[in-house]
Amino acid sequence: MATLYHHPLSPFCRKVRIFAAEKRLPVALEMEMPWARRAEFLRLNAAATVPVWVEDDGTTIPESSAICEYLNEIEPMPPLIGETPHQRAETRRLTAWFDIKFYDEVTRYIHGERLLKRLRRDGEPNSAAIRAGRQNLVTHLAYIGWLTDQRNWLAGDDFSLADIAAAAQLSVLDYLGEVKWEEAPEAKDWYQRIKSRPTFRPILADVQPGFTPPAHYADLDF
Amino acid sequence: MATLYHHPLSPFCRKVRIFAAEKRLPVALEMEMPWARRAEFLRLNAAATVPVWVEDDGTTIPESSAICEYLNEIEPMPPLIGETPHQRAETRRLTAWFDIKFYDEVTRYIHGERLLKRLRRDGEPNSAAIRAGRQNLVTHLAYIGWLTDQRNWLAGDDFSLADIAAAAQLSVLDYLGEVKWEEAPEAKDWYQRIKSRPTFRPILADVQPGFTPPAHYADLDF
Repeated sequence: MATLYHHPLSPFCRKVRIFAAEKRLPVALEMEMPWARRAEFLRLNAAATVPVWVEDDGTTIPESSAICEYLNEIEPMPPLIGETPHQRAETRRLTAWFDIKFYDEVTRYIHGERLLKRLRRDGEPNSAAIRAGRQNLVTHLAYIGWLTDQRNWLAGDDFSLADIAAAAQLSVLDYLGEVKWEEAPEAKDWYQRIKSRPTFRPILADVQPGFTPPAHYADLDF
Repeated sequence: MATLYHHPLSPFCRKVRIFAAEKRLPVALEMEMPWARRAEFLRLNAAATVPVWVEDDGTTIPESSAICEYLNEIEPMPPLIGETPHQRAETRRLTAWFDIKFYDEVTRYIHGERLLKRLRRDGEPNSAAIRAGRQNLVTHLAYIGWLTDQRNWLAGDDFSLADIAAAAQLSVLDYLGEVKWEEAPEAKDWYQRIKSRPTFRPILADVQPGFTPPAHYADLDF
């Protein structure tokens, strides 16, 4: 069985875990705190980031999008990146939107300041950054609402990696009680559909000592 | 013919232009200043970023990695992402390294502070950020040296998207005179090989009014 080096509250690790579960690819989880810069882990990934996927034969793949594209190639079913070049382009555009733009404008500020700084013990949260992240989150939730108003799922008719990438980011913010779902009913409806997928349940069961998620966090009827 | 909305000193646009040229896919260039937030451009890409690839039939693909994967699907030859799942994973890992990590740790600081702030007229360059970017660049050049010491090109035996992504980032820094090539001989040797490719020449011919590149910039023997 393959091994995934991960951290339970990393959105990028959650993305890979959900993607692998949707593909029905079993994987053993190894918890890693990448900021500890463990020498053996650095040999697996010079970037010192999780997730890292390691095959039985030692083949090592860091970086969440490289991992998901790889898993999609070794297990094409169900198709989670799209079935035509145009569909795949739309899925990849939106996946990058959430992995890069959303992370940069929202997750990095909120999760970085409130959670990572405490875990790494490297300073006090910057409240201006947290405020900026919260403001940007409103715009992104509106974009999710706009997309799901026109489409069944974010990238089109079918559930895809774009939904997984978006839900992975939102789930760590929701763990911190940061998502005002009542102000974004379309995004809430979409997230509710994702939460009800069996592949999402193990993610919601994860607990980070010292941080208690709000009551609604793992609740399907939030 | 397809159209590419681009900015000449955007590393991500350069990446797509080189990739398309290596695939021998002709494209018409449309210069765009994304910070002007032109309404018609925002309809093409809600993220308000370049590059955006538009096909003759109106199909619109924003985001440099989504575009390159798309071009690789409609024109598989020459194979620039790799020929096996493992090779493709390695190419994609390193492409993300330069697009995300290198951009975040180096380009954003130097190019963002020295160039974009002047073009956008939104403030004075932050010298602490520029210093941090310069320091991080040393480490990244050493990583390029380490990779090319073990391999012919960054991701393996063959020239790939990883080389293109890395060279695109470095080329905009080199335009600003920010790369101390004499201190990184292996990286210099690798960059020299890229500069001599015919697909790289049009990139080096681009000029941004108000910013004069150093004498060695377009020189193959630098």
